[in-house]
Amino acid sequence: MNGADRLCDTLLVNDVDVCFANPGTSEMHFVAALDRKPQMRCVLGLFEGVVTGAADGYARMADKPAATLLHCGPGMANALANMHNARRARTPMINVVGDHATYHLVHDAPLTSDIESLAHPMSHFVRRIASSEDVGPAIEEAYVASLTLPGVTTVILPADCAWNSVEPAALKPVKLPALKSVDAATIREVAASLRQHGARAAIMLTGLALREKPMEMAARICAATGAQIFAQMSNGRIQRGAGRVAIPKIHYPIDKALEQLKDVDYLVLVGAQTPVGFFAYPGKPGRLVHDGCEVTALAQPGDDLPAAITALAEEMGATKTAPAFIAPPRKEQPGLPTGPLDADKVCSIVSTLLPENSIICDESVSSGRMFYFDCHSAPQHDYIQLTGGAIGEGIPLAVGAAVACPDRKVIGMQADGSGMYTVQGLWTQARENLDIVTVVFANRTYQILHGEMRAVGVNDFGRNATQMLNIDEPALDWVSMAKGMGVEAARATTAEEFTSLFKAALAKKGPFLIEAAI
Amino acid sequence: MNGADRLCDTLLVNDVDVCFANPGTSEMHFVAALDRKPQMRCVLGLFEGVVTGAADGYARMADKPAATLLHCGPGMANALANMHNARRARTPMINVVGDHATYHLVHDAPLTSDIESLAHPMSHFVRRIASSEDVGPAIEEAYVASLTLPGVTTVILPADCAWNSVEPAALKPVKLPALKSVDAATIREVAASLRQHGARAAIMLTGLALREKPMEMAARICAATGAQIFAQMSNGRIQRGAGRVAIPKIHYPIDKALEQLKDVDYLVLVGAQTPVGFFAYPGKPGRLVHDGCEVTALAQPGDDLPAAITALAEEMGATKTAPAFIAPPRKEQPGLPTGPLDADKVCSIVSTLLPENSIICDESVSSGRMFYFDCHSAPQHDYIQLTGGAIGEGIPLAVGAAVACPDRKVIGMQADGSGMYTVQGLWTQARENLDIVTVVFANRTYQILHGEMRAVGVNDFGRNATQMLNIDEPALDWVSMAKGMGVEAARATTAEEFTSLFKAALAKKGPFLIEAAI
Repeated sequence: MNGADRLCDTLLVNDVDVCFANPGTSEMHFVAALDRKPQMRCVLGLFEGVVTGAADGYARMADKPAATLLHCGPGMANALANMHNARRARTPMINVVGDHATYHLVHDAPLTSDIESLAHPMSHFVRRIASSEDVGPAIEEAYVASLTLPGVTTVILPADCAWNSVEPAALKPVKLPALKSVDAATIREVAASLRQHGARAAIMLTGLALREKPMEMAARICAATGAQIFAQMSNGRIQRGAGRVAIPKIHYPIDKALEQLKDVDYLVLVGAQTPVGFFAYPGKPGRLVHDGCEVTALAQPGDDLPAAITALAEEMGATKTAPAFIAPPRKEQPGLPTGPLDADKVCSIVSTLLPENSIICDESVSSGRMFYFDCHSAPQHDYIQLTGGAIGEGIPLAVGAAVACPDRKVIGMQADGSGMYTVQGLWTQARENLDIVTVVFANRTYQILHGEMRAVGVNDFGRNATQMLNIDEPALDWVSMAKGMGVEAARATTAEEFTSLFKAALAKKGPFLIEAAI
Repeated sequence: MNGADRLCDTLLVNDVDVCFANPGTSEMHFVAALDRKPQMRCVLGLFEGVVTGAADGYARMADKPAATLLHCGPGMANALANMHNARRARTPMINVVGDHATYHLVHDAPLTSDIESLAHPMSHFVRRIASSEDVGPAIEEAYVASLTLPGVTTVILPADCAWNSVEPAALKPVKLPALKSVDAATIREVAASLRQHGARAAIMLTGLALREKPMEMAARICAATGAQIFAQMSNGRIQRGAGRVAIPKIHYPIDKALEQLKDVDYLVLVGAQTPVGFFAYPGKPGRLVHDGCEVTALAQPGDDLPAAITALAEEMGATKTAPAFIAPPRKEQPGLPTGPLDADKVCSIVSTLLPENSIICDESVSSGRMFYFDCHSAPQHDYIQLTGGAIGEGIPLAVGAAVACPDRKVIGMQADGSGMYTVQGLWTQARENLDIVTVVFANRTYQILHGEMRAVGVNDFGRNATQMLNIDEPALDWVSMAKGMGVEAARATTAEEFTSLFKAALAKKGPFLIEAAI
């Protein structure tokens, strides 16, 4: 057996059994080894951004990493934007990047590049494999790091480390170290401050703290003290819907975000970062809390966030308190809108018809900005979203979620401008017959940038600004593009047409795309 | 006026008047400034790989850099693969990457990343702008570097450096330093060795040495001594066709490349690298010349390559010698193939019908590997190709070439697997109504990898290898995809159909795509 076999075996013994792949010549021994392991599910992406975006969506739903197979520095470069999003979501991921044979690097062959320099900014862990015998230890380290840091790991596999032989060995799963727990002094201090600040305190959650149970526990604390609760602006996954905590996220538009936090004098972070503006704007603050607000981290990424919340609730005697903010079920089914279609009507129809236990992948950008807030009382669902602002994550994210959860309906809320960055992901949806409805908000513009241009004082656009902010000339025909990649698709221009298409898409299994002309 | 205005003015005064762009929020002031400069042509790409691939194609044909506008680290990450290709072609390019305002970086907002670490591997020059007054000097430096190193330059523009004001100033074009000339001792030494080695010597050219006149001069030297002549395996641009030097390139398949160079005992590099295998293969050498071959650089990238060749010819008294290897015109028009279509027939038809003064963009990978060699006696044309092995360059390269040369027909020879990486470039072809015929070799497989798998000893593919190497299920419908992006398209399944479509496409102006089912 060779290093590539060891790589596959090490992944499989640790229950990493999905590999999103876009291989090249330097990975042929890896591909040959994968071919000898039918228990590994290999999913091809026609572009590397599809590969890492899918690995991100997969791990957010499966709670374990997928492997990726990427080809040399330039192949990984194409994967970096969605690695960036995964890094911000702190998604466990094991990227395997093929490189030239160790002794070939000196020749500076055409595909040679500094992979480490490229990988570091978008990875929490980078490791170059030194020999075929080093493959097993490297993959084990990456696996542990992906789940404990947690985050994106990148392992560089020189071709000769894949093709040289290794001694056969009986492999065992690695024992994962326990997540770090928060010290008692911090718990006591936060508890005291929460009591002291009452309704002028807030708790901000992200990561595993946004699952049903820890959120509910945090909401018990809020009920006990009057504190508010927030999720970060962008998060890997939120479990939500009727009967769960109706947790507001921080808004993207800076004025709305400042408004949300203006009365908070004490902010407790649970895995979250201090909230800041997505961008800087002349004359506006960078931090979203006011200058007098005290910010304390109860727990950091890599800590056991649910346990920290429970410990805090215990300290406060709030573990049995009825939780605040629980979303009631809808009293009656809201009526469905009619007439010419617009973004709000699309959001309203999707929210109204949302199936129980579905997964929402949100890259709707400006069009669906209020969708999240409209869905608090919808049937229970998981909500996963663009996290790092690197657009082109939506279509792949849906791929990964659907691979992880084949029995659940995945609904992609997709802005058209953003969708074009990784449009190739539609082909993978067709290839794998994934159960995804993609709703494209076809406003034929980078709508978000129109607002940002006005924010810098430009209201009348000349030819150059129009050329750079509008994508209407020629109009993108999403139905043709989807069909070209094997995905059934149709266009809706009225609310009635959208409702009818969306119902039909929910009733069938397999990928379907609706171009919502708004 | 502000820093963004200064940026535009500095580009324009130096005759950089095309900006390939994919903007985001942090570049709004730059977009607003471009909107005030109608003399700057702004060309939108719906994905950043389109932007830098187009800038590469543009500069190869215009012999001056284009600017690009990219959005933060993740936006530039999407651009890196084609920056890598441009780096290998040593194409002049000025990338302007927007970043957060200087004072906002400390907050680690979602889109923040280490742009320098990402940029360095794919750039010859990286510079972060320090203030609005630093914008002008930084752009001037990048402009000079792009043309003298020559190569890819990346300038990081923090948002506040764009929006803060600058003192108005009368701008003048920068004076470009002369390219370095080769010292007389080197010329004498190379001349002596060429005389000594006779037919067992070879000259290997790249860069500006591959234009008509310097190639002809090199061929005079070859005529005088019996030396062979070669172009590198991959080159930015070659001027070729009947009446010009029929210069062979080094083959990609390693055994064929070794065969080409096996009798060369003395190799003179003119801007070129020592030829090496594109990849390492177990048991095969890395260098393509034999161990006893002496390799000497007559001139390095950044030297005045045409002047070095002329100096060498003068030293050898060969400036008037009749050049060797001049391709004769075709004696008679070859017959056009008929019957079921295959890759060779496509190449043959394109070669036969090639219009005078056209531009070939070659990313045909395995399907068109012999096309280059079939075209030595075709009407005169420019040949530009994938240089760094980072596939997904073909469609954007054609965009850039067509923007640079609006009066010339651009013909894209496009592998289907590679074409999918930057398929969004078709939309820019439609938006700008560029005169491009894209020929897609639709073999529905990563054909090159089938060969590479056999090279590692795998002949029977199981499910996983099949899933990763074939792209036939579902079949990509290029006609639908192209139409979805506004490009007229049709499919050919026979040689007769292909001939008819190709003739029609040549006869019209504007983009047209032919899916050649092979």
